[in-house]
Amino acid sequence: MGLSRGSQSQSVTERAVSVDMAVHPFADLSVSEIDQARRLIQSLHPNVLLSFKAITLEEPNKQHMLDYLEAEHGGAAKPNPPPRMAYCPYYLRGTTDLRTAWVNLTKGTVAKTEKLDPEFHGNVDFAEVVEVEQVVMQDPAVHAEIAKLELPDHLEVIPEPWGFGSDGVDDARRLYQIYMFVREKGKPDYNHYAHPLSFSPVFDPVLGRIIRIEQIPTGAGHETKDVEPFKMTPSNEYVPEEVTPRGDLKPLHVAQPEGPSFSISQDRVLRWQKWQMRLSFNYREGLVLRDVRYDGKPLFYRVSLSEMTVPYGDPRSPYHRKMAFDLGDVGAGMVANNLSLGCDCLGHIAYLDGLLCDREGTPVRKENAVCIHEQDGGIGWKHSNYRTERACVTRKRELVLQSILTVSNYEYILAFVFNQAAEFEYEVRATGILSTAAIDEGITVDYGTVVHPGVLAAHHQHILSLRIDPALGSYRQGNRLTYTEAHAMAMDSENPFGNGYRAISTPVKLAGGLDLDTSKSRTFAIQNVGMKNPINSLPASYKIQVPPVQPLLAHPDSFHYRRAEFADHSIYVTKYADDELFCGGKFTNQSRGGTGIKNWVSRGDNVLDEDIVVWVQFGLNHIPRIEDFPVMPCETVKVHLKPVNFFTRNPALDVPPSSQHANRSVLVSQDAANGCCGGKL
Amino acid sequence: MGLSRGSQSQSVTERAVSVDMAVHPFADLSVSEIDQARRLIQSLHPNVLLSFKAITLEEPNKQHMLDYLEAEHGGAAKPNPPPRMAYCPYYLRGTTDLRTAWVNLTKGTVAKTEKLDPEFHGNVDFAEVVEVEQVVMQDPAVHAEIAKLELPDHLEVIPEPWGFGSDGVDDARRLYQIYMFVREKGKPDYNHYAHPLSFSPVFDPVLGRIIRIEQIPTGAGHETKDVEPFKMTPSNEYVPEEVTPRGDLKPLHVAQPEGPSFSISQDRVLRWQKWQMRLSFNYREGLVLRDVRYDGKPLFYRVSLSEMTVPYGDPRSPYHRKMAFDLGDVGAGMVANNLSLGCDCLGHIAYLDGLLCDREGTPVRKENAVCIHEQDGGIGWKHSNYRTERACVTRKRELVLQSILTVSNYEYILAFVFNQAAEFEYEVRATGILSTAAIDEGITVDYGTVVHPGVLAAHHQHILSLRIDPALGSYRQGNRLTYTEAHAMAMDSENPFGNGYRAISTPVKLAGGLDLDTSKSRTFAIQNVGMKNPINSLPASYKIQVPPVQPLLAHPDSFHYRRAEFADHSIYVTKYADDELFCGGKFTNQSRGGTGIKNWVSRGDNVLDEDIVVWVQFGLNHIPRIEDFPVMPCETVKVHLKPVNFFTRNPALDVPPSSQHANRSVLVSQDAANGCCGGKL
Repeated sequence: MGLSRGSQSQSVTERAVSVDMAVHPFADLSVSEIDQARRLIQSLHPNVLLSFKAITLEEPNKQHMLDYLEAEHGGAAKPNPPPRMAYCPYYLRGTTDLRTAWVNLTKGTVAKTEKLDPEFHGNVDFAEVVEVEQVVMQDPAVHAEIAKLELPDHLEVIPEPWGFGSDGVDDARRLYQIYMFVREKGKPDYNHYAHPLSFSPVFDPVLGRIIRIEQIPTGAGHETKDVEPFKMTPSNEYVPEEVTPRGDLKPLHVAQPEGPSFSISQDRVLRWQKWQMRLSFNYREGLVLRDVRYDGKPLFYRVSLSEMTVPYGDPRSPYHRKMAFDLGDVGAGMVANNLSLGCDCLGHIAYLDGLLCDREGTPVRKENAVCIHEQDGGIGWKHSNYRTERACVTRKRELVLQSILTVSNYEYILAFVFNQAAEFEYEVRATGILSTAAIDEGITVDYGTVVHPGVLAAHHQHILSLRIDPALGSYRQGNRLTYTEAHAMAMDSENPFGNGYRAISTPVKLAGGLDLDTSKSRTFAIQNVGMKNPINSLPASYKIQVPPVQPLLAHPDSFHYRRAEFADHSIYVTKYADDELFCGGKFTNQSRGGTGIKNWVSRGDNVLDEDIVVWVQFGLNHIPRIEDFPVMPCETVKVHLKPVNFFTRNPALDVPPSSQHANRSVLVSQDAANGCCGGKL
Repeated sequence: MGLSRGSQSQSVTERAVSVDMAVHPFADLSVSEIDQARRLIQSLHPNVLLSFKAITLEEPNKQHMLDYLEAEHGGAAKPNPPPRMAYCPYYLRGTTDLRTAWVNLTKGTVAKTEKLDPEFHGNVDFAEVVEVEQVVMQDPAVHAEIAKLELPDHLEVIPEPWGFGSDGVDDARRLYQIYMFVREKGKPDYNHYAHPLSFSPVFDPVLGRIIRIEQIPTGAGHETKDVEPFKMTPSNEYVPEEVTPRGDLKPLHVAQPEGPSFSISQDRVLRWQKWQMRLSFNYREGLVLRDVRYDGKPLFYRVSLSEMTVPYGDPRSPYHRKMAFDLGDVGAGMVANNLSLGCDCLGHIAYLDGLLCDREGTPVRKENAVCIHEQDGGIGWKHSNYRTERACVTRKRELVLQSILTVSNYEYILAFVFNQAAEFEYEVRATGILSTAAIDEGITVDYGTVVHPGVLAAHHQHILSLRIDPALGSYRQGNRLTYTEAHAMAMDSENPFGNGYRAISTPVKLAGGLDLDTSKSRTFAIQNVGMKNPINSLPASYKIQVPPVQPLLAHPDSFHYRRAEFADHSIYVTKYADDELFCGGKFTNQSRGGTGIKNWVSRGDNVLDEDIVVWVQFGLNHIPRIEDFPVMPCETVKVHLKPVNFFTRNPALDVPPSSQHANRSVLVSQDAANGCCGGKL
């Protein structure tokens, strides 16, 4: 992970909300609700300075909401909404005293408070990170190390605080690991990751000071040496002023003369091509989809990214602790980029802001945290009748809901992509800069790749977990998870020529973790067996197409393994329980495991035709290549959800035909492209 | 497969080629060359009517071409080109006498002829298919079966000839299996696949008549019954006039005000964003890429689709023989669609024609067989410096070279997609109509899915093979195939906390088939160990990211298994040998195996740093869902090739920044989308 101070937008108090009266239970907290929660919590601690980690909507009670949604969509009288509740983790500032408060905003009371046990630590605090950077650079011990570098005047040292991680060695208190780099003075956007240093201060934010400086090995093994005079290597910059651009790329615009095909209501109900869903945004998960419906039927109660972990494979200290939990340690909402028109997407773009809070509990608007636009996804379906030579073809329009996270060096581009065939995908593009370490000249290691002279990028995994809370066709009927495999038939009288094979489906009865088996085409599906297809009597289903990923490589006895509880199986299924949103645990900063999904599945719940939650793990095993530096080309991974026997035919059959009249493509003439369409035979 | 008469374009003789003098050795045959070859072959058989299966460029001698290409790109004097040679399989019409001739067009002589053994059969002949359809519908035995249907006046029967397949039972002679369907009269584009019949004539094209009519089971087992009066089921049409279109899709155009960024020379050299390659098109493989180079360096000598097989899993006769080899039995070039401006792509589109021949050996222009256009591929790379909040972002422009095949019921959209990071992908979208069979009401089977009342779509696999003949960085240095795996380190003094893992690479020494192992992140790469990266000394490589697919499910003793020689491993590597282009064998129609890749690897060739060929198998195991009918939403599968330590940094670093100035996106205002950007907090 590494940290980021992406939420340093201006605070907002001026835009009070005028719709409190009719607020939907799924609506994000408003400015006034955040203010109210902060005041109520502060009133518990007169004259004590607090550090708020978050003030966010507490998930409304699901049973209550199912009644509410059934009434909302069924036209019946709605039950009273559940009370508006805020969830607020906070520290008594400058102490290890971490608490959570649940504030009943409807009643104006603090409903409950909890003091956390000392092994739990809150997520990163950006204001604190700024302070850490400042204090580190003023520390005499750090100055002494820097002096050994004998830096020429035009170079300076840059600190980058990271979460400390866990290894069980004197790591109970909350700490920061500060990685150090060199950069040219006056060039704040030069790529310091090309110039890593081999010492690393450790900072205690309660003491407010560095507690030690760790020397980092720069050879293949664990030996360290004292800091030596710095030898500057060539730079490796990505900023455009330092790169000669290729000159032959011509512009490409997306024009939508009648505007977009989607609409978003004041209370953030998105409607597009028979899809309807309620959007929200929080500090931890970023974009959350609730009450996702298609053509008048419910599909999913709630869909969101639950966690991402990035364990590194360099065994040397302090890298053995290097493991980010980007949602739990930092927050996808906290580090969401302010997206820019024309830079991050093409076409007609709508943006959503998020509303977070700063350390003081003051509402902070996260501008343009989500962008929403349509894109052309190529051909949707096509058939040509060879007898008549008539072609029927449609294009696949897609709706993209995108956020981009900057977690120090790395970027993650996260998108829900919906299409007209009632399918959606969750797409992750990994980009940004590799986390780097200093390495001596001529050394090669098998746990990393040299990507620049003197620079090692260690192997690491990115394992994400997408949480899917289904409501297939009904808010009330239970769902099951089933996997289907293809098995060859025996070669016998039923299959005399040996070509036969069958699909065999197996329902999952107990909560637990499950694996893919590509040798059997094993595919998981969420099913509502109470909703049979009217044509073929098969249960209404959505299949999950998830690309296989190597499970967590860390040893089962390691802290990495204990912490990333979800990272050992492609699929988990649990029975729904309140307050089970985060498969790596609610508090991941220096966590030790035991509070996440393994804990929940250990209940042994029956998950057959129950209120289930499905957790889909996927990602990358990143063995760096030199082409990934200084900024890596996007590496893309996708999870698809597709209806299976849920409808009675191709749901995209009614997409209007693709035609030149609508699409206005341009024939490239021979003149236009130097003999293009050339070679007329 | 099924057959298609897609090549019934007009014959062309008028556009003679004027560039014969300077023709490149890789250029497709011209009209005059095809004419010349036909005349020379016909002169061997005075007064004999021939059926030409193809007249196409014989692959020029590779050793000769390597000299030629080195000189061509090195600025040295070119050696004399190899002679222009045509490869021509043909029948003495109306007989089983299949021959191939190699015509030396430079000398104007037939260089060699071969008479094939009787077990080899030529690819499908469209003119013959038309005749088969006509004769079948005039056959009294067929009329007798149709009479039993007691069809009302508004319905008629439609025949669909398929290759017969192989099962070893009286199948040595060439045959057609004719599947029969019902359609409304006067509605030639209605979907007859929704109304399959249960009898199937078998046609002998040498005898020119039906030799028997097979009854097809309509229950779960093998029992057949006599044809009964037809019960019409509801229709399931995809033509737009029978579908009420959704009304809320607004147009989306791609505008390229300065035109496309690519050029294509008269002799079909494509240049785009540092890529350069020579395009050609033939009846069997469709689009072929030769001499693919990036930024002045050779990468691949030749890349093309080698074969696709579609075995069906229904064990009942005659479906036990149902197995298409779409390239070998029919030809990707033969069934390529005439692509339409504005229907099959957006933006500025260039088209290439192909030049084939008909049964008479007359040149036939395949209009618009390949379309070439750019598309926006989303963000290419991005990094934001959290300290300065400066974002650097580029978009990923892609170049798409696309062909669409119609093989009776199915469509395949095949595309090479190049990008600016020196990567390319081979993308396959499967769409079109499922091949269907009649099934009795109330029956369910585990080898297929009911997709319409009375209609079964059997499970089937699509296994494709992409042939990659590399020339990484050099035409002359050998290449090797290596696979890299990630392995956890033991938890010991080298790895005391258990997080460490290493990448271990293993070179492949002998020709053979290899498998993926996703549990180890096993990834294959082509390497030139003679070309070390100047920064990290690692060998210049291209990795192959291929999604796993279940290998062929047919029994090892089955004919299916013998025929689809390539379909058991994700990767094959062979040592280059002339005339080894088609991994399922050169003649696949009713083939019995033994002439494809298994034969070549049995030589036990050393492939370490040799002239190697890599064969990448991928595809789909299609367990149909009702949503795949009547036309299936595209199911997409991709193979990626990406440089690994071939360059010294991200090759896309010099892509100009993405900016609103260039991209001209439009902010969706609250007014424009019914409160869009709504929910200002």
